[in-house]
Amino acid sequence: MGDRLPDSPDFAVDQAALLAALGRILPPGRVYGEPEDLRPYECDGLTAYRNLPLAVALPETEAEVQAILQLCHRLQVPVVPRGAATGLSGGAMPHHQGLLLSLAKFKKILKVDPVARTALVQPGVRNLAVSEAAAPYNLYYAPDPSSQIACTIGGNVSENSGGVHCLKYGLTVHNVLQVRGYTMAGEPVTFGSAALDAPGFDLLALLNGSEGMLAVITEVLVKLTPKPQVAKVVLAYFDSVTKAGNAVAEVIAAGIIPAGLEMMDKPATHAVEPYVKAGYDLDAEAVLLCESDGTPEEVEEEIAAMRAVLEKSGATSLRVSANEAERLRFWAGRKAAFPAVGRITPDYLCMDGTIPRKRVAEMLTAIAAMEKKYGLRCANVFHAGDGNLHPLIMYDANQPGELERATAFGAEILELSVALGGSITGEHGVGVEKITQMCAQFTPEELARFEGIKQSFDPAGLLNPGKAIPTPARCREYRQTRGEQA
Amino acid sequence: MGDRLPDSPDFAVDQAALLAALGRILPPGRVYGEPEDLRPYECDGLTAYRNLPLAVALPETEAEVQAILQLCHRLQVPVVPRGAATGLSGGAMPHHQGLLLSLAKFKKILKVDPVARTALVQPGVRNLAVSEAAAPYNLYYAPDPSSQIACTIGGNVSENSGGVHCLKYGLTVHNVLQVRGYTMAGEPVTFGSAALDAPGFDLLALLNGSEGMLAVITEVLVKLTPKPQVAKVVLAYFDSVTKAGNAVAEVIAAGIIPAGLEMMDKPATHAVEPYVKAGYDLDAEAVLLCESDGTPEEVEEEIAAMRAVLEKSGATSLRVSANEAERLRFWAGRKAAFPAVGRITPDYLCMDGTIPRKRVAEMLTAIAAMEKKYGLRCANVFHAGDGNLHPLIMYDANQPGELERATAFGAEILELSVALGGSITGEHGVGVEKITQMCAQFTPEELARFEGIKQSFDPAGLLNPGKAIPTPARCREYRQTRGEQA
Repeated sequence: MGDRLPDSPDFAVDQAALLAALGRILPPGRVYGEPEDLRPYECDGLTAYRNLPLAVALPETEAEVQAILQLCHRLQVPVVPRGAATGLSGGAMPHHQGLLLSLAKFKKILKVDPVARTALVQPGVRNLAVSEAAAPYNLYYAPDPSSQIACTIGGNVSENSGGVHCLKYGLTVHNVLQVRGYTMAGEPVTFGSAALDAPGFDLLALLNGSEGMLAVITEVLVKLTPKPQVAKVVLAYFDSVTKAGNAVAEVIAAGIIPAGLEMMDKPATHAVEPYVKAGYDLDAEAVLLCESDGTPEEVEEEIAAMRAVLEKSGATSLRVSANEAERLRFWAGRKAAFPAVGRITPDYLCMDGTIPRKRVAEMLTAIAAMEKKYGLRCANVFHAGDGNLHPLIMYDANQPGELERATAFGAEILELSVALGGSITGEHGVGVEKITQMCAQFTPEELARFEGIKQSFDPAGLLNPGKAIPTPARCREYRQTRGEQA
Repeated sequence: MGDRLPDSPDFAVDQAALLAALGRILPPGRVYGEPEDLRPYECDGLTAYRNLPLAVALPETEAEVQAILQLCHRLQVPVVPRGAATGLSGGAMPHHQGLLLSLAKFKKILKVDPVARTALVQPGVRNLAVSEAAAPYNLYYAPDPSSQIACTIGGNVSENSGGVHCLKYGLTVHNVLQVRGYTMAGEPVTFGSAALDAPGFDLLALLNGSEGMLAVITEVLVKLTPKPQVAKVVLAYFDSVTKAGNAVAEVIAAGIIPAGLEMMDKPATHAVEPYVKAGYDLDAEAVLLCESDGTPEEVEEEIAAMRAVLEKSGATSLRVSANEAERLRFWAGRKAAFPAVGRITPDYLCMDGTIPRKRVAEMLTAIAAMEKKYGLRCANVFHAGDGNLHPLIMYDANQPGELERATAFGAEILELSVALGGSITGEHGVGVEKITQMCAQFTPEELARFEGIKQSFDPAGLLNPGKAIPTPARCREYRQTRGEQA
């Protein structure tokens, strides 16, 4: 504990003084300092990394957020913002010398405007709640991370979350118009506008995916999308993962942009089926879910085109959802893949590399070899259409050495992603988990520019320190170690 | 001359030494230093602002670009990159103490990939040339600024250009996947990737619209879009600009996202018609062009929906393009609006504010009052669907006082845009033209952040200095003047 943020400078914070000062801003019950109260905040979805913060604060108003940030800025206290903490890279893991700032009470949907097709929401609003509020107007919020029941819009912005439909409808950055918040110094800031473009540098896109390092978000204006009249999904089964991987490239090459194009291998479907009863064929080595949405005529035409390509690519059998209930059941299997794998293994690490679509089959072959090398199983669940991989490496933290082997397995996947022309993360962020691999992805000059941008927002370096941007020392060490191995 | 960049620091450059050093990098004929050779480079599309540079360089290879930047970095010479110089805000106006770096010879289309639907092009490739190269595959490059015959992709990225179809298909930032280039220090840099998202801060969006201040672009990977099967445009005439403005909001409110939604007022159609013979009704006070594209069924259905809304909004008559030739003719009128206005006035200033759609009618009323106040005519050409205004203020630079009155007229439109909840520029950039209005749009803290980001790429402040980001001194003076007026 307390040693998980080697990339953060050391802060000397007086916990009693911090709690006393917070107590002058927030009423009792919204400031915590006792270990038993801090425990629920010790990690996010990356449970392998934990820290107790010095304090937890739960503001309810923007004025409280501003006052807390001004206080921490004055006292030089690091601040880690947190939404629902469903993140998978440790971006919301607390700083052991700092404040954990929960936005959980910012959960109002302030306005749904069916004419402008926008929703103005607070950052603690759950992703799915936005679509529910928009449903009476036949609109929805398009990005749909698998955690959408629980994850919040503020976290979605911070991680630039995707989802199974992002191939056609874009990531969070493509569906957010404006964000308001506060800098670490407590200055109110607005990113973006209701208009398409704005003068000055494009800071809205910069904020999306900035992992809570530039500003604390207090309000988000999102785009709403008209619900398609019809959606259908094709299940395509394959007798090899290579054929399934190649089929993904073939679908896109045929000029089809599916509303979703996902892939699961046999270990994944075997984990899912007993849990969700999606109806998957358990004999297949891989299944693709390929969705079409639009008008009934468009969907009919596109499904026919998809079938033709998938058959030509060697699918052993195809099944089209007969109705909306079946379509949702097919997707429920995919969306529940992570918890389903969680049922069959004590622990798992979820990787998030992206690679060019045409390299999917190659990556799957390499992962199979790594399973043997590290003596660990891996279930593969891919946002195949955009080349975003989610290999789930299964391990048991109570078995000595397994966490280390799983971590090395994951690191090898990420470094292969970079070598194949891809990147170490598609949508889950860097956080603490992939901070070393940033040294593989970027040059020292590139990392210095990230740090320069960070400093232009937070010169004191107090907002979520030690995340996402590695120190030069870490990268020097990384390169030395790699050099010695080579 | 030479006094047009008050926001740039002073540089002491030895022209002879610079020319000699450039002569060691480039062969004769690709370095200019004589006034008659520099003259063609003295301005971009904003002809009211001119400067002769000390030298012009025309590199042909990335190695030459890198060597020139390393040289200028070492000698502390400011560098202004330039594409086709069709920009309308002076972003490519030379620095009187610096080098004008023309990318005109970077005009190769390196690869068109119909499977990945991408084109890899050099920055000096013309916008329309990309679509022409993609046409054999039934693909095109979606952003279509009115200058698309002449303007280049490098400039499009630098200004984040839009076009008449950007409401549906997005701006440049939404259609560019990756950009390669060099920092001022000559370091090679890559922004973005072929994947949807990448780790680290989103610098690709930051580069789009950065007005040549962060890096010199040498290669751009753009997305290609399938050509729609059919496109049709509705011309809707109105007997008042207010009704036309309101109709724009009604179309969007009805759940329609037109492929284009443009508006011209009577002075604009009267300028255009003798020039292009588009067939516009010259008695109408305003005309809307409302386009639908997609499958034949989609277009038929959407055109019917558009007609219904436009009739209900008070259109006096409607006309739907009968065939592709007529559709192109209707658009030709809109696309030629700027040169057409150029035929009827010695000079004009084109503004570029954006406002919320529902304020369009209000803005038009205010502009009519400003015409009287400043004694100048204004033709209005709007990307109405996204609230992006292009009022063309007509003046004669040879009449004493007219340029000053036109500038004040433009400034009042921009400040009203901000007051109505909009911004001072939608797609033309800030450059030198709107640098004062940046003080109206942004706080000193926001401008300091822009400057911080600029410095993280270009600590020496040599790349396109004096553009887009006003000095604190300018904004202090601006606020004092405004305070005195108030």
